[in-house]
Amino acid sequence: MKDPYQKLKTIFSQLSHVNYAERIMHWDEAVMMPEGAGKARAEALATLNCMAQKMLVSTKNKKLMDAAKQQELAFWDAANLKWMEKKYIYAACIPAKLTEKVTQETMLCQQAWRKLRAQNNWREFLPSFKRMFRLIREVAKRRGEALQLHPYDALLDEYAPGFNQKNIDGIFAGLKQTIPQLIEQIIKKQASVHAEIPVGPFPIEQQKQLGLAAMQAMQFDFKHGRLDTSHHPFCDGAPMDVRITTRYNEHEFLSSLMGVCHETGHGLYEQGLPREWVDQPVGRIDSMAMHESQSLMMERQVCGSLPFYQYLLSHIKEQLGHQTAFTAENLYQVASHVQPGLIRVDADEVTYPLHIVLRYEIEKKLLNDEIEVKDLPGFWDEGMKSYLSLSTRGNDKDGVMQDVHWPLGAFGYFPAYTLGRLIAAQLFASFIKSHSNFYAELKLGNFTSLHNWLSANVYSHAASLSTNDLLLKVTGKTLDSNYFIKHVQEKYLHTI
Amino acid sequence: MKDPYQKLKTIFSQLSHVNYAERIMHWDEAVMMPEGAGKARAEALATLNCMAQKMLVSTKNKKLMDAAKQQELAFWDAANLKWMEKKYIYAACIPAKLTEKVTQETMLCQQAWRKLRAQNNWREFLPSFKRMFRLIREVAKRRGEALQLHPYDALLDEYAPGFNQKNIDGIFAGLKQTIPQLIEQIIKKQASVHAEIPVGPFPIEQQKQLGLAAMQAMQFDFKHGRLDTSHHPFCDGAPMDVRITTRYNEHEFLSSLMGVCHETGHGLYEQGLPREWVDQPVGRIDSMAMHESQSLMMERQVCGSLPFYQYLLSHIKEQLGHQTAFTAENLYQVASHVQPGLIRVDADEVTYPLHIVLRYEIEKKLLNDEIEVKDLPGFWDEGMKSYLSLSTRGNDKDGVMQDVHWPLGAFGYFPAYTLGRLIAAQLFASFIKSHSNFYAELKLGNFTSLHNWLSANVYSHAASLSTNDLLLKVTGKTLDSNYFIKHVQEKYLHTI
Repeated sequence: MKDPYQKLKTIFSQLSHVNYAERIMHWDEAVMMPEGAGKARAEALATLNCMAQKMLVSTKNKKLMDAAKQQELAFWDAANLKWMEKKYIYAACIPAKLTEKVTQETMLCQQAWRKLRAQNNWREFLPSFKRMFRLIREVAKRRGEALQLHPYDALLDEYAPGFNQKNIDGIFAGLKQTIPQLIEQIIKKQASVHAEIPVGPFPIEQQKQLGLAAMQAMQFDFKHGRLDTSHHPFCDGAPMDVRITTRYNEHEFLSSLMGVCHETGHGLYEQGLPREWVDQPVGRIDSMAMHESQSLMMERQVCGSLPFYQYLLSHIKEQLGHQTAFTAENLYQVASHVQPGLIRVDADEVTYPLHIVLRYEIEKKLLNDEIEVKDLPGFWDEGMKSYLSLSTRGNDKDGVMQDVHWPLGAFGYFPAYTLGRLIAAQLFASFIKSHSNFYAELKLGNFTSLHNWLSANVYSHAASLSTNDLLLKVTGKTLDSNYFIKHVQEKYLHTI
Repeated sequence: MKDPYQKLKTIFSQLSHVNYAERIMHWDEAVMMPEGAGKARAEALATLNCMAQKMLVSTKNKKLMDAAKQQELAFWDAANLKWMEKKYIYAACIPAKLTEKVTQETMLCQQAWRKLRAQNNWREFLPSFKRMFRLIREVAKRRGEALQLHPYDALLDEYAPGFNQKNIDGIFAGLKQTIPQLIEQIIKKQASVHAEIPVGPFPIEQQKQLGLAAMQAMQFDFKHGRLDTSHHPFCDGAPMDVRITTRYNEHEFLSSLMGVCHETGHGLYEQGLPREWVDQPVGRIDSMAMHESQSLMMERQVCGSLPFYQYLLSHIKEQLGHQTAFTAENLYQVASHVQPGLIRVDADEVTYPLHIVLRYEIEKKLLNDEIEVKDLPGFWDEGMKSYLSLSTRGNDKDGVMQDVHWPLGAFGYFPAYTLGRLIAAQLFASFIKSHSNFYAELKLGNFTSLHNWLSANVYSHAASLSTNDLLLKVTGKTLDSNYFIKHVQEKYLHTI
């Protein structure tokens, strides 16, 4: 067979084209599509997905991969081949019938969730949830067998390749131990600070201009991307065509602004990937944990810092007028308020990891058959009490029913958020050590040194290195939660 | 083989999904895409196109079609199978290598055209045009062989199925004979009318609101469609998701408004197609001539009439303020001005068909080897002199180089515009005969009777009837240019 690896590259390049079409269709659905086209859109996406599956899984491709493994390949090509194989195994280990069932059952479960969460009705939601979870367990089992992994590890592997129960247990243990007492100290310290909440309305067009100003400073490339509006913020598209969205609330502008900064972090990662590899698996970031590291670094470490508010203040005043709450220090205080709450997506960065630990521990027990789906509300309530001293008893809509992830069948997803946050802290600590002038630059809206550093140390590697190998290369250590803890201590306890 | 026709339906349904994705990607390219994504977009579209081709052309599908032809099929199914076969033959008769060459050569020719038209440089453009045309001739020959048609008839068949040199010659002969003297009479009559040109600027947002008001009156379904902005107006998407675009000129609002009415005519046709057939060939309109009949009926017969201006006047004033030129009668006069000119796209409806006749006669001679590509400027100049008494000598940019169609390889396309216009006139004459109250309704912005009539007599048939069969059924005659001539006489010579 003549150069089987090259043949595989051609096939995966075509797959990336189909994927690009799917992503634009998704973006369009959320941003542009008239409501009556929902069914037609779902059918079209199902067909594209099915075509991609057929393009990927075939005896011919299996043979090409086996033959390619005998070839002498350069570093990037060898890494690329590994990702190809992984994608192949993921697709091949689930029979089409099961995929179809999962698609249908998760769709129904999501619809039930939408209706019944609003009614706080866990009891009626349970049967659908059970049916869905039974299928996810089946997927986990099959994928685990194919990858020779424990079923839950096989789910974790999808969102945070290289991480499993063993290393996550170790990493999360430190967080569980340290964060509760940090929260206590921070609340005590913040009690004496009075932050003045800005008063709206803040017109949407002006908020948009503000978001665009932030993106401009962050060096988002508008020749290869754009900002639009959707119900939930996201980053989609492809490296040459990055589609960022946000949502606006006329009464509060900081969440939308920080949402833009978050998604811009994703977008910069995409735009920074090496151009010559963007149509190959190794050139794209499948790791949610790595991707979140880039969005959270921008949102929490960089744009959430006082110097960035100092930079942005003139833009804020230009767009939203003036009021006494508009000082950099006050806005920074407002945005840095720490307070345990029931809802993950509203949580500050200090309490956030405990929301994740709770979900991780429940998923782990579920996939290890230690608990049953029907008992989740009780475990949830206990976990919230123990980590955040809050109860969700009788309030399942703000407890076990709050997230869309499980109804969608996305088990193993949550840990990636916190892993991403920890990676962000560790990478940023490494950057700032060698760029002590950065905050002074940031005050002037100058992201160049950070941009260059991320390009050289993160973006340019794409998926050629595992997360831990990248961390080891760049920071000298595998993932370590102490960088995040140190960030929290410094930001919330040592300074103002 | 168990129900081969049903199997074909499944395959063509999937093809329609891929086609939907391609169309949304096209729309997105024109309306949304950041400029740097052009290459990635072209690659993705090429891959989708290639996948669709592979889904369509296979020995398996050929066998399914042969077997389906033995089945007892109901009327719509039989018509559907015929369209399937036609699509199959179209795709199968051109080798992949030739398709690839055509794609590349037409792309290059279009690029050359963009640059050299601006420079009025036919000489430098000629070699690229020649290379492109040689390939189109090859396509015409192969398609002709497969369809057992003359090469030029095989090209015409793509845009106006059912029409060929023989019947077009007959239809166009009447136009050639009648229109020049009509123009003379109309110019004479209009010489005494002074129409006052509205004075801008007309803000784009207000023009958009005006266009939306027209669409609303025309009963465009915004649950299944939307209006956006692009360089050139078009209608794309799918029946459940119709994407209309227009462009705005701050100094002149009537063209954009009539552009919206035109595209809305296309959109209403799409939205009115029978829902149960929209994913099958028989349920969609491949005939450009039929599609243009619906857009031109709206633009020229309905929205270009005095009663529609009478209806729209309050909206025009609401959006654009007041000025003396804003009376229904004056705007109608401005929009109805007849004047021979060099440029087809700027032509009024009376001189327009002669632009088409000229192009048709040149295409016909080219495909019949009666003239050579290099001699086109001379034939163009002669034709313009004879039909419209205008010369394009030394002015090829406004002569043979004015349209993008030929550089794109679209030979056989132009006649569909005028065929569409004639179909529109004939259908509308039939409608108005049985709905004498329509203009009174139109004055109130009430399109209901027209909408119902078109639904019952045009939209609901989709492609189950040939154009002439549809005309015969609805109007009692096959295509006849006299309805159009009568419209011109009544509108331009008998009334104000």
